[in-house]
Amino acid sequence: MDIRAHLKEEAVYIDGVLADCLAPMKESVLHAAMSYALLSPGKRIRPALCLAVYEACTRDRERIRPVLAAIEMVHAYSVIQDDLPAMDNGTLRRGKPTTHVVHGEDMALLASDALLTLAFEELSSSQMMEWFGADRCLRGVQALADLSGVRGLVGGQAMDMITSSDEHIELGTIEYIHRNKTAALIEAAVLLGGIFGCASETDMEKLRVFGEDFGIAYQIADDIADAAATEAETGKTAGQDLKNRKATYVGTLGLMGAREKALQYLVLARDAALSLDEKSDFLIGLVDFMAEKTRS
Amino acid sequence: MDIRAHLKEEAVYIDGVLADCLAPMKESVLHAAMSYALLSPGKRIRPALCLAVYEACTRDRERIRPVLAAIEMVHAYSVIQDDLPAMDNGTLRRGKPTTHVVHGEDMALLASDALLTLAFEELSSSQMMEWFGADRCLRGVQALADLSGVRGLVGGQAMDMITSSDEHIELGTIEYIHRNKTAALIEAAVLLGGIFGCASETDMEKLRVFGEDFGIAYQIADDIADAAATEAETGKTAGQDLKNRKATYVGTLGLMGAREKALQYLVLARDAALSLDEKSDFLIGLVDFMAEKTRS
Repeated sequence: MDIRAHLKEEAVYIDGVLADCLAPMKESVLHAAMSYALLSPGKRIRPALCLAVYEACTRDRERIRPVLAAIEMVHAYSVIQDDLPAMDNGTLRRGKPTTHVVHGEDMALLASDALLTLAFEELSSSQMMEWFGADRCLRGVQALADLSGVRGLVGGQAMDMITSSDEHIELGTIEYIHRNKTAALIEAAVLLGGIFGCASETDMEKLRVFGEDFGIAYQIADDIADAAATEAETGKTAGQDLKNRKATYVGTLGLMGAREKALQYLVLARDAALSLDEKSDFLIGLVDFMAEKTRS
Repeated sequence: MDIRAHLKEEAVYIDGVLADCLAPMKESVLHAAMSYALLSPGKRIRPALCLAVYEACTRDRERIRPVLAAIEMVHAYSVIQDDLPAMDNGTLRRGKPTTHVVHGEDMALLASDALLTLAFEELSSSQMMEWFGADRCLRGVQALADLSGVRGLVGGQAMDMITSSDEHIELGTIEYIHRNKTAALIEAAVLLGGIFGCASETDMEKLRVFGEDFGIAYQIADDIADAAATEAETGKTAGQDLKNRKATYVGTLGLMGAREKALQYLVLARDAALSLDEKSDFLIGLVDFMAEKTRS
């Protein structure tokens, strides 16, 4: 499986889904800022993971579209806020000015709120209820809310902010931050794929493990790229983590130590993916692809 | 019915609910900012309305507690963000420094995110599913998400921001802002009371009308208070609307015109409340109480 090509193909499909989801609100004064943030080019790794897990069980792409959108909306909301002056003060992302630079802080913030809320609208629509039943939709809401909130994404982000001026950060704290700030939403993505794809309870537990371990490795790889790369390569303000004194594995373990840590998590993720009853070639291929990138 | 006394009594009950809901996250670094914003003294009018509608149908206060909390959490999230420097830059509310003044902009923003997300966690918990069934919980999520998002609260807030430097604002625009910024969440509160209290479909439609009309009147009354009062009376920076050039009925119709407008909406709200099959003395009493205050 050519992972790079497959990811590109899925990203094109997901971009179409995202554009369709925003179309009904094009009359809103927030449409421009929401579109700017949500449709800005990206790897779409989270919805791609959700889709892969879903399709390991069932083959009806149409119905999972609102779920793919919901996941990317939560990601886009977190990215907008991450870049705000009160947070990391990022002005460049994926090679483009960040949302608040283009649309102003107020519209950027409100667009982020709108995207987060829209994610829950997507999961609770009457159409979704008809397709999947209220029980599964509610489980989806539960998973997304739990993993995005104070015990997930937002909690991790908060810990990241309050430790960002600390000289020495414990490895346990860094792990907490990565597990919540990054891995939680990746975990939500695969869990939603499982919930709507009707995964068994044992597979759900394995998906949880996969999401968490793959998610942490994904964040470490991002930190490695940030530490090593120039602005032109990453498309965002380079060395930003260092400048903001972010808690990263690279900062604590060094580049080689961080690489090793990422590979350890990828082994765990691979084991979990291999042990699924409903296996996905994409999940395993993606882990191998990441491992190869991390080694080089 | 002594509305003032009843409101106070309910506020005490609701304060207990809110404190209980935050207790499980007291280990979180966000607990302080979340508590500061959510438990700060307030009228608790939205959860009180929800409770009244719910109790018009059924008498089991225990089970509606997560719903009351969810509504006040969405309100608190919107208040935190409203006061941010990038928005209205309010430093005083209910006689106390605003959340970002005390906890910093980053923690205030993350606490607002955590509260919004927690509202959806409250509505989708396994306990709620057991009590009310997934179908009703999902309808609750749907109502709250729809009315809080780009077609509700957030949309109204965005329109408020982009028109705030305009010299002349159309009455239709002001109505749009009030309907969405304020009335939408009040509508959500009564609808949630109806959904979980098992209101009939015809009562649900009447509740929708009540929530919208009462909500607009409530915002006009707030604008009248802001225009007329001193800081000591309202507990927030006085004349803030005028300073920020907010779109208000007072600004467009003058004090007398705004009073008249509020009373018109209160008549509509009263008619809707009176026509309910499951009537609530509190709803009617509250309308009369507001009308009396508006006249004086």
